[in-house]
Amino acid sequence: MKKVTLGPQTFLYPLPALLVGTKVDDTPNFMTAAWCAIAASKPAAASVAIRKDRHTLKGVEQQGTFSLNVPSAALAKKVDYCGIYSGKKRDKSHIFQIFYGVLKTAPLVQECPVNLECKVIHSLDLGSHNLIVGEIIETHVSENCVTDGKPNPKMIDPLIYAAGTSEYYRFGDIIGKAFNIGKD
Amino acid sequence: MKKVTLGPQTFLYPLPALLVGTKVDDTPNFMTAAWCAIAASKPAAASVAIRKDRHTLKGVEQQGTFSLNVPSAALAKKVDYCGIYSGKKRDKSHIFQIFYGVLKTAPLVQECPVNLECKVIHSLDLGSHNLIVGEIIETHVSENCVTDGKPNPKMIDPLIYAAGTSEYYRFGDIIGKAFNIGKD
Repeated sequence: MKKVTLGPQTFLYPLPALLVGTKVDDTPNFMTAAWCAIAASKPAAASVAIRKDRHTLKGVEQQGTFSLNVPSAALAKKVDYCGIYSGKKRDKSHIFQIFYGVLKTAPLVQECPVNLECKVIHSLDLGSHNLIVGEIIETHVSENCVTDGKPNPKMIDPLIYAAGTSEYYRFGDIIGKAFNIGKD
Repeated sequence: MKKVTLGPQTFLYPLPALLVGTKVDDTPNFMTAAWCAIAASKPAAASVAIRKDRHTLKGVEQQGTFSLNVPSAALAKKVDYCGIYSGKKRDKSHIFQIFYGVLKTAPLVQECPVNLECKVIHSLDLGSHNLIVGEIIETHVSENCVTDGKPNPKMIDPLIYAAGTSEYYRFGDIIGKAFNIGKD
């Protein structure tokens, strides 16, 4: 298949559509972010790229903490709302039911099936964005989405962000078991 | 919904199942990685967490370059193979059709609909893993997966890695348009 070149682009598939929770000037705030990933296992860590002018970056810098919340497809409109409107102009503290875990400054979204509490350990200046790396301090999962002690993607029904066409998708069919279907 | 706590865990949804391409001692090698993300837009950058004992890390350090290749669901078995077996023991240079772009040391997978060429700009020691940040130098997309000058997720049919149950999924239904369905 012939390839076309598109220059330096930010196209990766899939990307998540997560809610990053922070407290900014004591008000809980939630930003939608697709540029998040796991960064290490020991200690468990996660990364999120945050544009420098973002209200959320102010909260991260004030508190040194943040949360990553995995929404289900049913929350798509609220997630998109948090991606469109800045906390500088809209109070987003009443959109979701909020709870706190170990870290008292990282608001967690009750309606999101998976919540990670993170404590900042690195902030890397990458130009347009700061890449924030947080140690994962605690993981919360909605009880009805846990099978055999682990989160169950079918029950979580996570939202996917598709770059390029800028659409939200949900998970489809299972292809197979990882660390298994490729055995020779 | 009641929550259960699982301790510091690496559960995020969705995660990708990408092929990280490197040259190790002059041999092209491919590692499967789920802990990848976009890290910035200007300059365009991507991050990948690589365990310290990985053959791929050796290649990244030797060349200062790597590629991120987005496989379609049809490649699941080969992707899983690259995640099970180390390049230390298996020659993975003949699994895929390889091509090179601007960077002459980052092998790209012809069969993968999207390929990013990356040049290392940071390596962050996070304990178990090094978080490698690369500037994205060029993006290649298979011609039949481009619509209106952008990659089309429906045609790419990307592979998803689901942590917890360790399964591969494919994309399902479209939920809606981002930066749109949440407008008030």
